Amino acid sequence: GAGSNEVHNDASKPKRVMVIGGDGYCGWATALHLSNKNYKVAIVDNLVRRLFDHQLGIDSLTPIASIHSRVRRWKSLTGKTIELYIGDICDFEFLAETFKSFEPDAVVHFGEQRSAPYSMIDRSRAVFTQQNNVIGTLNVLFAIKEFSKECHLVKLGTMGEYGTPNIDIEEGYITITHNGRTDTLPYPKQASSFYHLSKVHDSHNIAFTCKAWGIRATDLNQGVVYGLRTDETEMHEELHNRFDYDGIFGTALNRFCVQAAVGHPLTVYGKGGQTRGYLDIRDTVQCVELAIANPAQPGEFRVFNQFTEQFSVRELAALVTRAGEKLGLKVETASVPNPRVEAEEHYYNAKHTKLVELGLNPHLLSDSLLDSLLNFAIEYKDRVDKKQIMPNVSWRKIGVKPRTIVA
Amino acid sequence: GAGSNEVHNDASKPKRVMVIGGDGYCGWATALHLSNKNYKVAIVDNLVRRLFDHQLGIDSLTPIASIHSRVRRWKSLTGKTIELYIGDICDFEFLAETFKSFEPDAVVHFGEQRSAPYSMIDRSRAVFTQQNNVIGTLNVLFAIKEFSKECHLVKLGTMGEYGTPNIDIEEGYITITHNGRTDTLPYPKQASSFYHLSKVHDSHNIAFTCKAWGIRATDLNQGVVYGLRTDETEMHEELHNRFDYDGIFGTALNRFCVQAAVGHPLTVYGKGGQTRGYLDIRDTVQCVELAIANPAQPGEFRVFNQFTEQFSVRELAALVTRAGEKLGLKVETASVPNPRVEAEEHYYNAKHTKLVELGLNPHLLSDSLLDSLLNFAIEYKDRVDKKQIMPNVSWRKIGVKPRTIVA
Ligand SMILES: NC(=O)c1ccc[n+]([C@@H]2O[C@H](COP(=O)([O-])OP(=O)(O)OC[C@H]3O[C@@H](n4cnc5c(N)ncnc54)[C@H](O)[C@@H]3O)[C@@H](O)[C@H]2O)c1
Ligand SMILES: NC(=O)c1ccc[n+]([C@@H]2O[C@H](COP(=O)([O-])OP(=O)(O)OC[C@H]3O[C@@H](n4cnc5c(N)ncnc54)[C@H](O)[C@@H]3O)[C@@H](O)[C@H]2O)c1
Repeated sequence: GAGSNEVHNDASKPKRVMVIGGDGYCGWATALHLSNKNYKVAIVDNLVRRLFDHQLGIDSLTPIASIHSRVRRWKSLTGKTIELYIGDICDFEFLAETFKSFEPDAVVHFGEQRSAPYSMIDRSRAVFTQQNNVIGTLNVLFAIKEFSKECHLVKLGTMGEYGTPNIDIEEGYITITHNGRTDTLPYPKQASSFYHLSKVHDSHNIAFTCKAWGIRATDLNQGVVYGLRTDETEMHEELHNRFDYDGIFGTALNRFCVQAAVGHPLTVYGKGGQTRGYLDIRDTVQCVELAIANPAQPGEFRVFNQFTEQFSVRELAALVTRAGEKLGLKVETASVPNPRVEAEEHYYNAKHTKLVELGLNPHLLSDSLLDSLLNFAIEYKDRVDKKQIMPNVSWRKIGVKPRTIVA
Repeated sequence: GAGSNEVHNDASKPKRVMVIGGDGYCGWATALHLSNKNYKVAIVDNLVRRLFDHQLGIDSLTPIASIHSRVRRWKSLTGKTIELYIGDICDFEFLAETFKSFEPDAVVHFGEQRSAPYSMIDRSRAVFTQQNNVIGTLNVLFAIKEFSKECHLVKLGTMGEYGTPNIDIEEGYITITHNGRTDTLPYPKQASSFYHLSKVHDSHNIAFTCKAWGIRATDLNQGVVYGLRTDETEMHEELHNRFDYDGIFGTALNRFCVQAAVGHPLTVYGKGGQTRGYLDIRDTVQCVELAIANPAQPGEFRVFNQFTEQFSVRELAALVTRAGEKLGLKVETASVPNPRVEAEEHYYNAKHTKLVELGLNPHLLSDSLLDSLLNFAIEYKDRVDKKQIMPNVSWRKIGVKPRTIVA
């Protein structure tokens, strides 16, 4: 974000940004990007995502260095320090110490259990997801109120909060005229997994604290993120980002590229008409920076829909097939029984102009981008574990017994 | 409910109803009412509400017997058994056993931390409230799915979920026409305490499980309950219900009656234009019975607004003043700085026809009702602890330090 950059460079003291969940896919790319732009960055993370990988027998396609090696490498390459606070934000004693020690001007909160299938494995994962996400976010709100009243909260939500209504999706609010009267109200939410629901709960909690306490917050309702490389993660292999392609943490387009690379049919769930918003990870880091550089006002609960293009799953499969064929791959598509409960054909038209108005310059999903994502998947294809590819969590079959996933 | 009664009596086997939170104000009255109507009743409660009273130094105006004495007395008076399961519904092992042992046809879920001020005392009570309510309800949903698939969930929500929008409040859903397209969506929620927010979270979670698992559920968005006596609780003093008048658990009208009885000025918060729906506790038990007797369909998430009349706080104060004067009391009103963050003058028009359509025959708040509530408050006035009357929890001042309330 060129515009935002200037806002930032004008200030005498660098802005201090706490990145919660900074060891994860979006968080790591964002932490490096902000550090590179001369923000003073601290990562807060309990690394529980690495534990999930162990427990589920899955792994990032890319080898990833420990968080300690990552920040050491960043320091040795750029001279910039990223502070590290390892701990659980559900532990308020820990979180309070990080706030008192780091004194953030902005908090970017990525630190949640973020997989819908994970939240639908069994009862205890459903409960964990809502508890971890809702209580973690409550703690962040209390920490801001108590220790950093002026701090701007930039919270990652998801487009999945809205579901698939039969009317246009607006950015957070909708003006309704009803029986001759008019009001602008929170856009109705229809989430469809315990994970997506946890984000809806967060949004309501944050909105309340903005009103009651004057917290300034931006809720980024993010679409599905694809891609791997950002300028900073490419600087050294110890800075490489994680890349999930498994049935639990892998997201649609990333999974398709890996499937195409290894000759696995693309797994389209049901009819494939499910339409969602998508964005390149380079736009995730850009959007977050724009939000930080242009903070919400005290008491303002601002909602941005953070994606750049809409695609149906069927369209994505067709794009990957075409790009694969250009690279000499024979790509097939298989319709898989849908493990989720969702509409497979529906209207979808979601607004996403607010970040563009702030200066977002989108990286669009062209054939060339697909080429590079695909090429990268081909590069790593020997690391692909095919047993991780098929979905193994069912929305309808979830039960109360603790379940061990065995691929 | 006469109509519902017949529905019930027609069935060969009595319906089995689990009343979660059956030791509380609404739950106890409901459990007795249903038992009296020949439902087979089990109470599930961890009695934590009695612990809150100890911890906060507050007490019910009426002396209340232990839950064990209550059900023994009921049995000796009527020959009817109310089964008792003492435990925490957040403990799934416990909850699973109660479901397997009792095999409910319907679950009425009152078992939550239900005070808005309590949820605003300090961080740990805010977190407790959301955790207790959200996880408890998740567990109930999982227990129904696993053990009693056909069971009808009757869940207590609150009118406070809607906040005070500038348009009419509908019952759970609103039909919106936007940019030329139309859909019926969940009514937007604007809750204004961590307690009210927990109910919004519950509603979203329940709606999802109805859709994904075919759960049948009725969400009763209840207004503020007043009154004490129901036919059954009057049968013996060991069956008497609790009556809260303190600043944390006392609700508006009940508090005003006690204040009038002891010569304390009526505590109107701010301008007193806050308008809400109210109902007599005899209508609470009637509404719940109507919901049970006319269950939701599999997969249906039905929302009823459960109240009978709307009043502003100012109007309530005027009604109590007039009724008090008839009884020779001199009643004054004091405007107290509002401890809450809420609109003090606003539009309010909430629909509440669905329960009436099912047969609800409301007890309206007439002068005579006020007389009996007031007479009852006068009868117990020697038990009133005046130190409990003033509000001592502030929406804006809540902090992270654990707080001991000292009256
Ligand atoms: N990846 C996507 O496509 C996508 C799409 C929409 C929204 N989002 C949102 O963006 C955020 C980041 O997603 P991601 O893909 O980078 O996820 P990720 O799992 O890669 O990263 C999340 C990080 O948060 C950490 N974390 C989780 N709970 C924590 C806790 N209690 N305390 C401290 N740290 C904790 C994890 O260890 C992990 O490093 C999430 O909130 C997610 O919901 C992601
Ligand atoms: N009283 C009102 O004016 C009013 C208004 C609107 C809605 N409601 C709703 O009606 C329900 C009952 O309200 P009430 O006034 O009777 O409250 P109450 O506090 O008198 O009763 C709640 C009962 O639930 C039990 N409980 C709480 N958490 C539990 C857990 N985890 N496991 C087992 N038991 C648990 C408590 O011990 C208590 O006996 C609540 O859900 C409340 O939100 C009440």
